[in-house]
Amino acid sequence: MVDAVENQPPHQVVIVGGGFGGLYAAKALGRSNVNVTLIDKRNFHLFQPLLYQVATGTLSPADISSPLRSVLSKSKNTQVLLGEVNDIDPQGQKVIMGDKEVSYDTLIVATGAKHSYFGKDEWEEFAPGLKTVEDAIEMRRKIFSAFEAAEKESDPLVRRAWLTFVIVGGGPTGVELAGAIAELAYHTMKEDFRNIDTSEAQVILLEGLDRVLPPFAPELSAQAEVSLQKLGVSVQTKTLVTNIEDDIVTLKQGEEIKQIAAKTVLWAAGVKASPVGKVLGERTGVECDRAGRVMVEPDFSIKGYENIFVVGDLANYTQESGRPLPGVAPVAMQAGEYVASVIKHRLQGQTAPQFRYVDHGSLAVIGQNSAVVDLGFIKLTGFFAWLFWLIVHVYFLIEFDNKLVVAIQWFCNYFTRNRGARIITGRESLPSVPIANNGHYSGVKNRQPVNV
Amino acid sequence: MVDAVENQPPHQVVIVGGGFGGLYAAKALGRSNVNVTLIDKRNFHLFQPLLYQVATGTLSPADISSPLRSVLSKSKNTQVLLGEVNDIDPQGQKVIMGDKEVSYDTLIVATGAKHSYFGKDEWEEFAPGLKTVEDAIEMRRKIFSAFEAAEKESDPLVRRAWLTFVIVGGGPTGVELAGAIAELAYHTMKEDFRNIDTSEAQVILLEGLDRVLPPFAPELSAQAEVSLQKLGVSVQTKTLVTNIEDDIVTLKQGEEIKQIAAKTVLWAAGVKASPVGKVLGERTGVECDRAGRVMVEPDFSIKGYENIFVVGDLANYTQESGRPLPGVAPVAMQAGEYVASVIKHRLQGQTAPQFRYVDHGSLAVIGQNSAVVDLGFIKLTGFFAWLFWLIVHVYFLIEFDNKLVVAIQWFCNYFTRNRGARIITGRESLPSVPIANNGHYSGVKNRQPVNV
Repeated sequence: MVDAVENQPPHQVVIVGGGFGGLYAAKALGRSNVNVTLIDKRNFHLFQPLLYQVATGTLSPADISSPLRSVLSKSKNTQVLLGEVNDIDPQGQKVIMGDKEVSYDTLIVATGAKHSYFGKDEWEEFAPGLKTVEDAIEMRRKIFSAFEAAEKESDPLVRRAWLTFVIVGGGPTGVELAGAIAELAYHTMKEDFRNIDTSEAQVILLEGLDRVLPPFAPELSAQAEVSLQKLGVSVQTKTLVTNIEDDIVTLKQGEEIKQIAAKTVLWAAGVKASPVGKVLGERTGVECDRAGRVMVEPDFSIKGYENIFVVGDLANYTQESGRPLPGVAPVAMQAGEYVASVIKHRLQGQTAPQFRYVDHGSLAVIGQNSAVVDLGFIKLTGFFAWLFWLIVHVYFLIEFDNKLVVAIQWFCNYFTRNRGARIITGRESLPSVPIANNGHYSGVKNRQPVNV
Repeated sequence: MVDAVENQPPHQVVIVGGGFGGLYAAKALGRSNVNVTLIDKRNFHLFQPLLYQVATGTLSPADISSPLRSVLSKSKNTQVLLGEVNDIDPQGQKVIMGDKEVSYDTLIVATGAKHSYFGKDEWEEFAPGLKTVEDAIEMRRKIFSAFEAAEKESDPLVRRAWLTFVIVGGGPTGVELAGAIAELAYHTMKEDFRNIDTSEAQVILLEGLDRVLPPFAPELSAQAEVSLQKLGVSVQTKTLVTNIEDDIVTLKQGEEIKQIAAKTVLWAAGVKASPVGKVLGERTGVECDRAGRVMVEPDFSIKGYENIFVVGDLANYTQESGRPLPGVAPVAMQAGEYVASVIKHRLQGQTAPQFRYVDHGSLAVIGQNSAVVDLGFIKLTGFFAWLFWLIVHVYFLIEFDNKLVVAIQWFCNYFTRNRGARIITGRESLPSVPIANNGHYSGVKNRQPVNV
């Protein structure tokens, strides 16, 4: 069937972004009669759903990262290109990277989303989010440095602020972070300090709606809340954050205004689309939603440009039910694979069947032996949910790369409750804090900066 | 025997530095009737002999790091203090950390060494060394970014410079780095690129003396050189580096001056003692050698201060043979344990037996299935040497922490020849290079900086 085009140059597919959407599209096109160029800023695919385990010292960044070249090395029609796309020329059919250009016949844009502060970008300094490896290392640095600072602190009020961890946002990431920090404080590290009792730490999870894990069934949200409380997390729903400053989080609960003194505030509350969406909107006239996501057609192409597709967190895809597809990894994977099939069908003069999202359910882990799983037809909690979560994640990690090590890391952690990756790296300076004077030592000095 | 002192406050031992010397001293004092404070700049002990595996993408930093608090959590007489010692008051018996002080009855200084450029500190910018986790991540970034830049480069001369890796220094670290980079280029990544053939990379190992691995027996040096050449490394002995600039390394071989165009130059040539040695010299009048190491007495104390000990790479300990002890991990471990025993003996009014270094031999790994081992009574090369090296390193890693994962990582790598940790993180900007224009793409733009 491809005879007719055999003497033409092969069809050029350019994919921007090596996340779940872009990578699954590239893999699905790996053995077809097209040339593929995958462009990404980073040289690796990141398994974002496990980033919170890097932030809390269980896994290393490389455990959840797969070099893109290595994942795609068998696809001889595919090349990987490191760089950032900053403009798109839909008339000239090319993407612009600085002063260079890459031509395409078909373009797939899958640049995803980053965390958003709902217009309060000044909060980022005090409440880092979790989207990149560097975010996770910074979060890890903040969490473990807080315990170190508390160990040295003599003023009980300041020590309490160092031992108070506020997580903003009760979605899966917020729940997972809160559970992991509670386990660190109340189990993993409880023998490690001499001047503080880490079990005095407070872990506070804030959610604006009336329950945690809003996308889940209400009974699972309730179960998750109970499990979190059992772990020691203080769950505060119907709570709006109105301000975040250096050490103070200001909340609104109903009519009441509260303040929490906390040195560690972590952001897990919102996402906004990558700026490539806006660029695409300006160049093609396609509509974007309030979060910057691009409105796509039923085949993920954009209005007026059937050779430009948008998949993953950057796309706003309205299902027949009228609700948009959620911004989760399975949606991106399925959309990426679907678009690859649309392209292959078109090249053979055919039309692909309609896209139908297969919702395999939702998972969130709360702590060791504790998770919630909503598969639609069955809902699991506790140990079996946790085991299910574990198996699913190991399966997806192993698919790409030899990440057996992660499974073994978890297996060891299960029995030892240890977290081998709780190292403070990156920014080398310790927090400057008023220092304790409890007898025989009394201080710490800022450290020299290093070139990281 | 300790009855006489039972009503006195316990003897305070302060250890500065959580490397092999300091940590082994702390562990040996863990169950004795003294209070121990271990001070380190970092919250983890680093297994430095494997740092080159982080730099070349086999292991993650956390795989070779053990949180100090966790290693010492069972020693209830021991506290860990994060911070940097910047002065010592031997008369007042205290160490100074910024504007704070820690009092001691006995002090053990074990702050080690860092790499040295023999007075040419301006070379550091172009030829990073390998002593810290951050150094290793930076080296990893440099190595993998070089292949990425070569992939985009159209000028064959510039591409050749991107694919030229110069390692300065033929000691164990230099040999291990050269072997690992050769394996990356000629095996691991050979399917990963589309525009370059990574087997065209050049890996050049420079050594000033007449053979690599100078501390080893000459026949093992010869064997190592043969193994390196078999792997594809160009070994150049009797070669002095006279200058390092951005892209050019200048060499002197006999009377001949040569230049190599190389974008990646790695430094594995020399060490100098930590600045704490100089401070100690100024405050106590103790002599330091040219490399800044402190001259110590036969029990590792310093002249005139029998309650101050120096161990590890910071100490210059002259053996009966007249030669100083080498700067390797086993020396530091044994010295740390010995000093702990001196302290325990003294507190019981006894004298410890004399220190005798037990030399278990030297090891260096060249590549998969290839190492050299010199145990004195037996010399191994090839596969059995490699297996021996592997077992020794797994043994020491597991001793501290549950680093079984490293063994499994290596086991998997052995069969897959993959290197899962070859991710480019940290500084987020890609090198600015003249860009190829080979048909359908042509460029890359510098990326946005991130807060790491």
